Amino acid sequence: MRFCSHCGAPVGLRRPEGDELERHVCTECGEIHYQNPKVVVGAVCSLDDRVLLCRRAIEPRAGLWTIPAGYLELGESAEEGAAREAFEEARARIEITGLLAVYSVVRIDQVQLLYRARLLSPEIAAGPETLELDLFDWPAIPWAELAFPTVRWVLKRAIELRDHAGPYPPAMGPE
Amino acid sequence: MRFCSHCGAPVGLRRPEGDELERHVCTECGEIHYQNPKVVVGAVCSLDDRVLLCRRAIEPRAGLWTIPAGYLELGESAEEGAAREAFEEARARIEITGLLAVYSVVRIDQVQLLYRARLLSPEIAAGPETLELDLFDWPAIPWAELAFPTVRWVLKRAIELRDHAGPYPPAMGPE
Repeated sequence: MRFCSHCGAPVGLRRPEGDELERHVCTECGEIHYQNPKVVVGAVCSLDDRVLLCRRAIEPRAGLWTIPAGYLELGESAEEGAAREAFEEARARIEITGLLAVYSVVRIDQVQLLYRARLLSPEIAAGPETLELDLFDWPAIPWAELAFPTVRWVLKRAIELRDHAGPYPPAMGPE
Repeated sequence: MRFCSHCGAPVGLRRPEGDELERHVCTECGEIHYQNPKVVVGAVCSLDDRVLLCRRAIEPRAGLWTIPAGYLELGESAEEGAAREAFEEARARIEITGLLAVYSVVRIDQVQLLYRARLLSPEIAAGPETLELDLFDWPAIPWAELAFPTVRWVLKRAIELRDHAGPYPPAMGPE
């Protein structure tokens, strides 16, 4: 960050009064520009004991498999965001049934809220960020071709809790 | 947002290719400036069946009582952030023992991750954002003088789960 998004003047790093950290502060108007981690929301969506996975059409990790997930947007709840991502990436209509995991991925400044969900219909189709998609029997999950560690963790957790009606105690990391 | 924080040129609202929403996009360098909800982390901290509350020295809701909580910073996990806030606001050293609640507060674009924690020492003291603080017996909680609805919700939830060893199924809203 080099310029103030409010007035266009240069910003500098300094510690505002009463703050513990240095921030980007405008040298003209004094606006403080905070930077914070982002929330990723996603869902392990299943139908008749099969789980929905999408093969990524975009970087990072294009060509590998993931659950529908993405950044939470302004104006929506975490559950609404997870349902929106399922629709955008897989044209899936889902009902969220519980929170499976809360993962802090500090290296990339993300907090991931990953839910379990039920597909309300078998009608699914690849969205623009998806090359192909399928409903996998749990033993057929392509473990070696998953896009991210958090996808592996949450799928393992979903398997552990497969016969548990929920609500689930959310996992904080790999177990 | 009016100017590009990367190059200082004006930004305009438009929908980037492949995006579902309008974003602030730089008219010169093309940088897309995403805006997303922020994460608030906090903890219901207790010692010998008494709970730590802080009277706020700052707006909003100065003079009212809250649990230690604040924005998650870059470079820390949600649990680390909750522990940092407990230290900043109450000089409290804590151990996180479980996730009590995940609240989406859509109106103000926050996701709140609220934990249960154990005070590791009875030594507490008001930080700069705190007027005074105290350990309350649960029946003595000042319900009418709490700063935010989420504080009320999570304290009620902590009471419900008081004798539950955890992990807890996290609440999504008032119950």
